[in-house]
Amino acid sequence: MEILDEDKNLIEEKISEENVFDGVLLHVQRDTVKLPNGNEATREWVRHPGASSVLPILPNGDIVLVKQYRYPIGKVTLEVPAGKLDKNEDSLNCAMRELEEETGYTADKIKKITTIATTVGFSNELIHLYVAEDLSAGKFHPDDDEFINVVKMPFAEALKKIENGEIFDVKTIISILLYARKK
Amino acid sequence: MEILDEDKNLIEEKISEENVFDGVLLHVQRDTVKLPNGNEATREWVRHPGASSVLPILPNGDIVLVKQYRYPIGKVTLEVPAGKLDKNEDSLNCAMRELEEETGYTADKIKKITTIATTVGFSNELIHLYVAEDLSAGKFHPDDDEFINVVKMPFAEALKKIENGEIFDVKTIISILLYARKK
Repeated sequence: MEILDEDKNLIEEKISEENVFDGVLLHVQRDTVKLPNGNEATREWVRHPGASSVLPILPNGDIVLVKQYRYPIGKVTLEVPAGKLDKNEDSLNCAMRELEEETGYTADKIKKITTIATTVGFSNELIHLYVAEDLSAGKFHPDDDEFINVVKMPFAEALKKIENGEIFDVKTIISILLYARKK
Repeated sequence: MEILDEDKNLIEEKISEENVFDGVLLHVQRDTVKLPNGNEATREWVRHPGASSVLPILPNGDIVLVKQYRYPIGKVTLEVPAGKLDKNEDSLNCAMRELEEETGYTADKIKKITTIATTVGFSNELIHLYVAEDLSAGKFHPDDDEFINVVKMPFAEALKKIENGEIFDVKTIISILLYARKK
């Protein structure tokens, strides 16, 4: 999306940048920017390579989700299979790879739903959402030290779990709600 | 949500923690955890105070959104008014405060929609989503150095902008889609 003329009054310009934290997983940058009023401000944000996720639909309409312990929130989540893009990896390839790694399924039909921004205030993470149909079961093989329980559930149950808050992960909610609108 | 017995095989236990970056905005922690198989792993994640957002519905059914330049992604976004919880602030109070600060509107009727987790892999950010009705217009007064354009749009147009990718911010998509299901 290009920036419209009417919104040019909002733009910030980079003055300088600095890598302030280079971790194993996280890379944090602190930039100094010029605000629309000429003042300077600091922007600290997490550099992210982007990710893909995939909503797998079984022939009977059930969906496949994965349960994982998510350390930052200290909870087990119900999520669509997903993962970060490898270097130079295409988002479609990433979606198919993560589907197979985390659930064992491969898909004959896979389609982009949309792309979402999770945290526009402090990260550039984009997630490319896909939906997969015509699935074939296989053996799942998560990465070493990745612990996953695969679950199947009726589509209506997933919608109910969104409404009662049991499904609270953003990519999972949006994949299911957008697919529900298309059905 | 409690962790079910069947998912106890997924749990990671903290061995140690370290603050690795304390910025103006971002606070990053690196913890060492024990995995279910006994191995050790590193978890780097952003500590976040949580946030509230609010979907304002005008008497004619139009909604109020804000446009902002979001530096990490280099784009102007269409978003529901939102902001971080102040220290010890209640999420409802935060939603009402941000609504007034960013749009000038106050609401006689405000209701929780749900709570979402934006980035379960690298942050503990939770956003509490609200919907506001019975609005009264007032003068908006964003924070110093906060630049915002307020826009009104028909609900159907917002749905279309979700489907064509012009609205791509997660809290905004979920607020609109869940409200559409209740209508």
